[in-house]
Amino acid sequence: MLNKLRKRLNHMTPAQMIVLYYFMAVFVSVLLLRLPVATQPGVSWTFMDALFVAASAVSVTGLTTVNISETFTVTGNFILLFVFQFGGIGIMALGTFFWLLIGKKIGLKERRLIMADQNQTGLSGMVKMLKVILLIITIIEVIGAILLGTRFLSYYPTWQEAMIQGVFASVSATTNAGFDITGASMVPYAHDYYVQIVSIVLMTLGAIGFPVLVEVKEFFVNRYRRNHLFRFSLFTKITTITFLGLLIFGTLAILLLEQNHFLADKTWHEAFFYALFQSAATRSGGLATMDINQFSETTLLVMCSLMFIGASPSSVGGGIRTTTFALNLLFLYHFGRGNRSIKIFKRELTDEDIIKSLVVTIMAIVICFTATVILRVTEDHSLIEILFEVSSAFGTSGLSMGITPELSTIGKFVIILLMFIGRVGLIMFLLFIGGKGDNTQIHYPKERVIIG
Amino acid sequence: MLNKLRKRLNHMTPAQMIVLYYFMAVFVSVLLLRLPVATQPGVSWTFMDALFVAASAVSVTGLTTVNISETFTVTGNFILLFVFQFGGIGIMALGTFFWLLIGKKIGLKERRLIMADQNQTGLSGMVKMLKVILLIITIIEVIGAILLGTRFLSYYPTWQEAMIQGVFASVSATTNAGFDITGASMVPYAHDYYVQIVSIVLMTLGAIGFPVLVEVKEFFVNRYRRNHLFRFSLFTKITTITFLGLLIFGTLAILLLEQNHFLADKTWHEAFFYALFQSAATRSGGLATMDINQFSETTLLVMCSLMFIGASPSSVGGGIRTTTFALNLLFLYHFGRGNRSIKIFKRELTDEDIIKSLVVTIMAIVICFTATVILRVTEDHSLIEILFEVSSAFGTSGLSMGITPELSTIGKFVIILLMFIGRVGLIMFLLFIGGKGDNTQIHYPKERVIIG
Ligand SMILES: [K+]
Ligand SMILES: [K+]
Repeated sequence: MLNKLRKRLNHMTPAQMIVLYYFMAVFVSVLLLRLPVATQPGVSWTFMDALFVAASAVSVTGLTTVNISETFTVTGNFILLFVFQFGGIGIMALGTFFWLLIGKKIGLKERRLIMADQNQTGLSGMVKMLKVILLIITIIEVIGAILLGTRFLSYYPTWQEAMIQGVFASVSATTNAGFDITGASMVPYAHDYYVQIVSIVLMTLGAIGFPVLVEVKEFFVNRYRRNHLFRFSLFTKITTITFLGLLIFGTLAILLLEQNHFLADKTWHEAFFYALFQSAATRSGGLATMDINQFSETTLLVMCSLMFIGASPSSVGGGIRTTTFALNLLFLYHFGRGNRSIKIFKRELTDEDIIKSLVVTIMAIVICFTATVILRVTEDHSLIEILFEVSSAFGTSGLSMGITPELSTIGKFVIILLMFIGRVGLIMFLLFIGGKGDNTQIHYPKERVIIG
Repeated sequence: MLNKLRKRLNHMTPAQMIVLYYFMAVFVSVLLLRLPVATQPGVSWTFMDALFVAASAVSVTGLTTVNISETFTVTGNFILLFVFQFGGIGIMALGTFFWLLIGKKIGLKERRLIMADQNQTGLSGMVKMLKVILLIITIIEVIGAILLGTRFLSYYPTWQEAMIQGVFASVSATTNAGFDITGASMVPYAHDYYVQIVSIVLMTLGAIGFPVLVEVKEFFVNRYRRNHLFRFSLFTKITTITFLGLLIFGTLAILLLEQNHFLADKTWHEAFFYALFQSAATRSGGLATMDINQFSETTLLVMCSLMFIGASPSSVGGGIRTTTFALNLLFLYHFGRGNRSIKIFKRELTDEDIIKSLVVTIMAIVICFTATVILRVTEDHSLIEILFEVSSAFGTSGLSMGITPELSTIGKFVIILLMFIGRVGLIMFLLFIGGKGDNTQIHYPKERVIIG
């Protein structure tokens, strides 16, 4: 029996293992969150709500059908923190690992830079990589907790409460979970730029992709050793530029679109921080320093598209991912110019990656559009509210116009599925539902058709 | 001077020639429509309106900022009819011709079936093809005019009026222009299933693609000659199945989504015809037997996606085109299953066509989304009204929730641009704005990046 199970596990594809991990994590989380010690006395919540919160925490989305601060005890808060900590890191680690595994045929030199240990494809290599990820994330989270916790001393009556808020806020920001135990997201810190800057940095470190963090570490190690052979991988360059580009674009868009609206009566620094923070939140962080219902529909539409793009691959974020978006842009540009190959940073992109990026984007649009149509039927909310909720779930951002607690059962299922797909990544999802491929040797003559 | 111009024309790419044709057609149309005889006494309309109507007619979209029946004289109606007749056929003919020209390296056998004459790439071949197109369309239109005109005798006081309505309705349906001189689209015939069926058949013949019509003609000619070697091209098979599939999907979707809403108090045949006609109109026809504002937002969203897909390539329609949509679906399915090549009807699709279909779709989504965001800022209308207008313009369907006459100047320009892009086709548009390609021989090492 156990032998059979092990055999089965050995035969699983990476995609199936990630999905299995996800489902097991959700299952365990539901059990943990349903423990009587987790909820405040007198609170009764349904199994569906527990499933929703568990799926939201494992996928580090942060959407929730219940108010966290009114539902959970301090123990409950830490159980939730534990869930999104491992949900976020687990899938990121597995994803990064499998990418290294799958990508082993090419770019050996580049990978060597990412992983100092040559043995990373074996079990010991995986354990080592997990350790590196955990170590880096933990260091970031501890520093974040100290920076925030000490600041919170001026917000909360006791130092225990300040520290609990600090730890929760740091882990929630770093894993991009976006949960809050303030009861009002980051609104209490709407004028505390220190807290906002720390949170933005933490969210960015979590969402920019684990390989980027490792390479930056390698870069400094190599500089110290005066080894000048180090070179950042194409992935790191593309994802970092896209990430920062989207952050800037989002900030400018919000500033521009809201200048006569929400930001009309704000000072320049208030306006800048409102725009910057909400732009950063769309990458994957999901926290907000204001009630986003106050934004105009146009701003919300732009935020939808930013959340849809999401964060870096191999990060704690979701969406179609920054690289997918960048490759789409590069491809459209080069295709329009009639170029045969796409050159960037003195490297050429592979056809396979380009096709993958196109597939992911179209598939994501189809999924989000279908979800929007379904929710438009099952829910009694406006189009923009639904579109925003769908984009937020798929991008695992967790921002919401407030309709989450009012979702119908079908609506909850759809959002749970979107969070799952967004988090695991469409490529993994497609590999999971897909078969092993067509190995027949039958070939037919090629024939062209008229396009567009 | 003239010599220089001829030299320049000879150096133009097919894409540039189509765009030139389009702009010249719009220019001439504006001049014609601004003739005093075209408008009813006392009517004053702006140059912008004339430009809009001309662009709408040349692109056979049918959106209009002025009421046609209240603005134009009978002469004006015929000028308009003349414009959309040549707008529709011209670009379709040029598109088909250039596709044959560009596609000449492959599928010679298939093309031979499409064009009996081997010489179609020369000027004489082009003239011959134009004649075939004109002949087929004219036959269809004449039959349509007779079928509709005789029926209209019971609607209009004089036979002249009935015949004018018949001719206009037939040409407008066949070219999928979607203009009406009834003043209320097809609403007067909401219970006349004969008129509706004739209109649907005419719209379908115009929108299903010229190569399909030619192949069907060839099929019957070959059958008559007992020549059993005839085979429908892959293009014809894919586009016809997709076209009919979308028609059925649209009908069922409207029936389902409106059963407790607009169709609640209708008999089964009324419901069926309302659903069928409006579904057919989204392919490209743009006529309506009811006020589409009565549909629910969900139905309107589904119609947006249907209009976005549009009609067949080399037809009078617009959108991303049926084949693009079909190739997307096929590709996503086969990619998900891990297949290397896409086989259908015992043929394989080329990688180039697949990539083109993905590019067109993503580009179209980006363009329509951007247009929606712009219009959301410049216009004072709801998201669904704007999305519907944008989809309708890009798909050159011409259905509208009624916001066209209220568009701002920027709004009108955006819609004109969308009609143009939708009609000319994104592939042609990309080829037009694009350069000649990167001919440098520099090659860089390939490097993979993490996607999705
Ligand atoms: K999140
Ligand atoms: K039309």
